[in-house]
Amino acid sequence: MKAFPLNKTFTFLEPGPVILVSTACGDDFNIMTLSWTMVLDFTPRFAFMTGPWNYSCKALLENKECVIAIPTVDMAETVVSIGACSGAEVNKFEKFKLTPLKAKFVGAPLIKECYANIECKIVDYIEKHGIFIMDAVSAWIDDRHKEKRLFHAIGDGSFIVDGEKINYREIMIAKLPDGV
Amino acid sequence: MKAFPLNKTFTFLEPGPVILVSTACGDDFNIMTLSWTMVLDFTPRFAFMTGPWNYSCKALLENKECVIAIPTVDMAETVVSIGACSGAEVNKFEKFKLTPLKAKFVGAPLIKECYANIECKIVDYIEKHGIFIMDAVSAWIDDRHKEKRLFHAIGDGSFIVDGEKINYREIMIAKLPDGV
Repeated sequence: MKAFPLNKTFTFLEPGPVILVSTACGDDFNIMTLSWTMVLDFTPRFAFMTGPWNYSCKALLENKECVIAIPTVDMAETVVSIGACSGAEVNKFEKFKLTPLKAKFVGAPLIKECYANIECKIVDYIEKHGIFIMDAVSAWIDDRHKEKRLFHAIGDGSFIVDGEKINYREIMIAKLPDGV
Repeated sequence: MKAFPLNKTFTFLEPGPVILVSTACGDDFNIMTLSWTMVLDFTPRFAFMTGPWNYSCKALLENKECVIAIPTVDMAETVVSIGACSGAEVNKFEKFKLTPLKAKFVGAPLIKECYANIECKIVDYIEKHGIFIMDAVSAWIDDRHKEKRLFHAIGDGSFIVDGEKINYREIMIAKLPDGV
């Protein structure tokens, strides 16, 4: 994987795809599937929502670290299945034949099979709403990854795959941050 | 427009599309374009992020009400253009030939041209992060709206249109809330 510029990491989350979040709990790694995410401004700062019913939540609160991994649509069935079981019962990396790679700044692993991986430090937790706030500290892209289409949860068990791309850069140019 | 069940409103936001947010400021209505949104659990509770640089922010803080309107891809150029100008300078409903309709429970107007409209009461504001938390109190759908594809911001001036739909309901069935 190649280093990816931190100031562009928000472009993986802004379209609202289904993501994977990896955590480390001692020597154990876990993964959760997540759709409740949000970009906070044009910065490498993000929010996501989860709660104590989720096995990953304990590791997030203890380590204050995670990796946000961006799966493409060829991984959709695996990603949905990861969300349908608990790390309390299974080792998800083994069960779903995914490869943990050592991250640079966090104990949580990168997921080799994903298109991109964003190492994050959790900087705040709004307990009342279950919202975690995190800063990206390093990002990686697999530039040989052929499939680039992401997919989005509807919330009823169906998903929408990325379709055509349209360009309104000229209309937005004054609002875009430098270098994006 | 027809009433739409509140417990399914999250299915418009969970896929992460670009949305419009309407507000009322006295007799004046305003609209902003937004992509930084998040579903909070399987409830009609949502979050979005904006800040004081945004003209709509004052109305959100004062009235604690808004309408989340869901535009389809045939409105994309209008929606992007709405985001590129300020309500401090133009009346966006007039400029973009959009029709405000009276909402049931909030002073902010529905937008007739949108596929769906969700009336929201703001229940919390996390000033430190610019995050507004809101509950849907009423929702409407234009069931004669032919175009149903939503679109998603990448953040660099380009946008991704909804493509094919895939179904993993069987894998997720135990995790889905009743009636969704």
